[in-house]
Amino acid sequence: MSPEDRARDCLLVVFGATGDLTRRKLIPALYQMEKQRQLPDSFAVMAVARRPYSIEQYLAEISDTVKAHIQGGIDKNTWKKITGRIHYQPLQFDRPEDYEKLKEKLGHLDEKLNTRGNRLFYMAVSPQHFGPIVNQIEENKLISRSHGWQRVMIEKPFGHDAITAAELNRTLRQFFEEEEIYRIDHYLVKEMVQNLMTIRAANQIFEPTLNAEHIDHVQIISTEADGVGIRGDYYDKAGALRDMVQNHMLQMLALTAMDMPSLLTAEKLRAEKVRILKSLVPLKPEQMKHHLVLGQYQGYRSEENVFPDSSTETFAALKIYINNSRWQGVPFYLKTGKGLSEKAARIVIQYRLPLGSWSLVETTQTLKPNRLTINIQPQEGVVLSFNTKEPGTVDTLLTVNMDFCQNCLAGTNTPEAYEKLLADAMKGDLASFTHWDEVEASWQWIDGIIDWAENHPEAVKDYAQGSQGPVEADGLLNQDDGCEWL
Amino acid sequence: MSPEDRARDCLLVVFGATGDLTRRKLIPALYQMEKQRQLPDSFAVMAVARRPYSIEQYLAEISDTVKAHIQGGIDKNTWKKITGRIHYQPLQFDRPEDYEKLKEKLGHLDEKLNTRGNRLFYMAVSPQHFGPIVNQIEENKLISRSHGWQRVMIEKPFGHDAITAAELNRTLRQFFEEEEIYRIDHYLVKEMVQNLMTIRAANQIFEPTLNAEHIDHVQIISTEADGVGIRGDYYDKAGALRDMVQNHMLQMLALTAMDMPSLLTAEKLRAEKVRILKSLVPLKPEQMKHHLVLGQYQGYRSEENVFPDSSTETFAALKIYINNSRWQGVPFYLKTGKGLSEKAARIVIQYRLPLGSWSLVETTQTLKPNRLTINIQPQEGVVLSFNTKEPGTVDTLLTVNMDFCQNCLAGTNTPEAYEKLLADAMKGDLASFTHWDEVEASWQWIDGIIDWAENHPEAVKDYAQGSQGPVEADGLLNQDDGCEWL
Repeated sequence: MSPEDRARDCLLVVFGATGDLTRRKLIPALYQMEKQRQLPDSFAVMAVARRPYSIEQYLAEISDTVKAHIQGGIDKNTWKKITGRIHYQPLQFDRPEDYEKLKEKLGHLDEKLNTRGNRLFYMAVSPQHFGPIVNQIEENKLISRSHGWQRVMIEKPFGHDAITAAELNRTLRQFFEEEEIYRIDHYLVKEMVQNLMTIRAANQIFEPTLNAEHIDHVQIISTEADGVGIRGDYYDKAGALRDMVQNHMLQMLALTAMDMPSLLTAEKLRAEKVRILKSLVPLKPEQMKHHLVLGQYQGYRSEENVFPDSSTETFAALKIYINNSRWQGVPFYLKTGKGLSEKAARIVIQYRLPLGSWSLVETTQTLKPNRLTINIQPQEGVVLSFNTKEPGTVDTLLTVNMDFCQNCLAGTNTPEAYEKLLADAMKGDLASFTHWDEVEASWQWIDGIIDWAENHPEAVKDYAQGSQGPVEADGLLNQDDGCEWL
Repeated sequence: MSPEDRARDCLLVVFGATGDLTRRKLIPALYQMEKQRQLPDSFAVMAVARRPYSIEQYLAEISDTVKAHIQGGIDKNTWKKITGRIHYQPLQFDRPEDYEKLKEKLGHLDEKLNTRGNRLFYMAVSPQHFGPIVNQIEENKLISRSHGWQRVMIEKPFGHDAITAAELNRTLRQFFEEEEIYRIDHYLVKEMVQNLMTIRAANQIFEPTLNAEHIDHVQIISTEADGVGIRGDYYDKAGALRDMVQNHMLQMLALTAMDMPSLLTAEKLRAEKVRILKSLVPLKPEQMKHHLVLGQYQGYRSEENVFPDSSTETFAALKIYINNSRWQGVPFYLKTGKGLSEKAARIVIQYRLPLGSWSLVETTQTLKPNRLTINIQPQEGVVLSFNTKEPGTVDTLLTVNMDFCQNCLAGTNTPEAYEKLLADAMKGDLASFTHWDEVEASWQWIDGIIDWAENHPEAVKDYAQGSQGPVEADGLLNQDDGCEWL
């Protein structure tokens, strides 16, 4: 057994064990990991929540939802094995004596399973509880600094703005080192987002062309067809800028635009992302008109737990410049929203039109620029559109696609995001988690935009559900010669 | 009617009208052009050959073979129309009085059809007749310099070496201007060879990467599965170096390697090709061992009209450098031969391995270089192989293809080579014909190699029919780190 595998022995302590995330994502992920024998022998789950359940009651409570979210049918033996590893501890987040009891139980388990003090705390709770829980963990000495490792996994949102994010981080850092904090951005474990690094690093035809000399603009798009659904309470306070742009969208931008690290280590990778995020050109209030389009789908105000006069944006499109020599003058367009025509995420890198011959030829034909599209979801793959001569003609142009469909690969068994997140955290691989410097830089850049938006509710345009979003978003793009959302 | 269309009115005078080329290629091509209404009203074919046929006898003589080489079935009306345009004139190539009669007939036709003196002479005869015929054409004043245009189409081979090619050219140039001479290289009208210019000129992702900074090497391959067949008489005197390398292979090399012309005109295009051909690094006798592999398939000496002790090469592989800054140090590998495992032509551009991250990562994986393959025949299309991350793994590399299949385009009606050649010559478009400067530069470069080969019959290695050629050809490539024929 290699050292990396050994390092996975641990107790996974889940705060918020009766919540949606635990039922729909975490336990199903652990089931799959069990099935694929990715869990170490020395491993247990300590489910923690407020209700005074026995373990039997807890399992009875969550089983239906968990099972409904396990893909590929339930294998009885696996189910028995994984549920056999789960323990339950009732706990009021603010009661020290409950933490005492938790500590005792963890101690017993640690001894029994030989997990050597390794503890992974998972915060599957509302953000306001992150700080108090971490405080109690420390005060009641659930973390032993004498042996084993301690790690904490934190769900988004990491703060509500730059100030609250910094506060939360200060709290965490009182008790955890930066490299013990696993800030989740589940876009970072999507197969094609992970692939982005490989595609850039391992192909001489792509990487040397990804710069202002060759690229006209980049589009980063993540849209949903669904509305806000049952998440109105959270979403109405957040909006698209906080919910999607500050984290997922800027992370994809960073991965696309960053310089390749000299070594593909988590540390160097995250450092390069930080450099990009710190290079984003801030938007001044007078620039918003040409750089920001906000929208709200019609009917949003009637959604459950949404204020009837809400001006929360369910759509955001941005035009962003990066202040470095590599990307000088190359706009990065971001588009995200709910209630749109399709659920899809992709990165489109549009090349410049070639210089030289074609611009000199007298022709009525419109030469289309090359486009390299990284499809992230639901399609996964790479498409390169390029120009050829239409067969049988002298020089009629025909734009065609070369297509690599990753979904079409036979025998592909892509792990779900949370399997990857849990496995990485158990292994201690930070590459797919965000460093505080990234979070901080994102908030610092977007804070002014969110401030402006909150003070300009009239800037939020209506759009019909199932549409492409507000028509104003097209205007954002058309300012640059004739480009369009792709 | 545009001026370009007008320019097509002409009399097409075919010398060698009972020959194989006329039956199998020219008349079928004219039939297709007639069918697609690409022939002007003012147009006739004057078939010229030695035998004293009437037109009826001539048509009877050639009809079976012609019909057998028309694709898509014979349409009676089209057949009647095209044969109605054909006239026949018996002629001994060396008898002036026959040329007098031909001149008279052409004069009548010219007047009757209003072809305005435009004459296209097609040399579908053995090369030794090119000079004498052209001489007679001039002496007997079949060319009028007072009105219309005169053009001559010349089949390969254009000379047997640099000296004889120059002689032939001098003869032609006594009577024709350079821009009246249409030297045929039928590879230049293959769809994907024509497409090469568009693919290079119209795509920012390709052209800026085609240089020594990004490219490891280029392979240009044209192989045949068939042996020499009925062409033993010609081929045994020529060999692969003359039959394929001097013309088709070096033309493909030139189109791949040349700088893009500032305008896509025939003149500028051909000038750029000349620059490349003049930059080919000559091979010294002591270099042949590492730059040249010759082969002869087993059984070749028993072929019809082949000398029983022939040392003619039916296979040639070369490693060539270009002496300019764009391609400094980038080998161009050429491979051609008969009696090999497949009939195929393609250009493979292999990129360098990426610098940076991947070379620093400790990995046992072999990173494969990007390859851009232009499939010329029988498949037509473009394939880009690149590296991705295998789904579900952390960083296992997977090399995959993006594929554009031109054959698969619906409704594609690719004209045969000779339709395109005839149409271009009638239009006066020289872009797909070779300039004397190209022919001269090719011969001058290859002459020394052919000389050396003829003085080193022991250098010609045996290879089995249906094989990849002599094993020595692999050695040519493997000298460079681990690359292989693709």
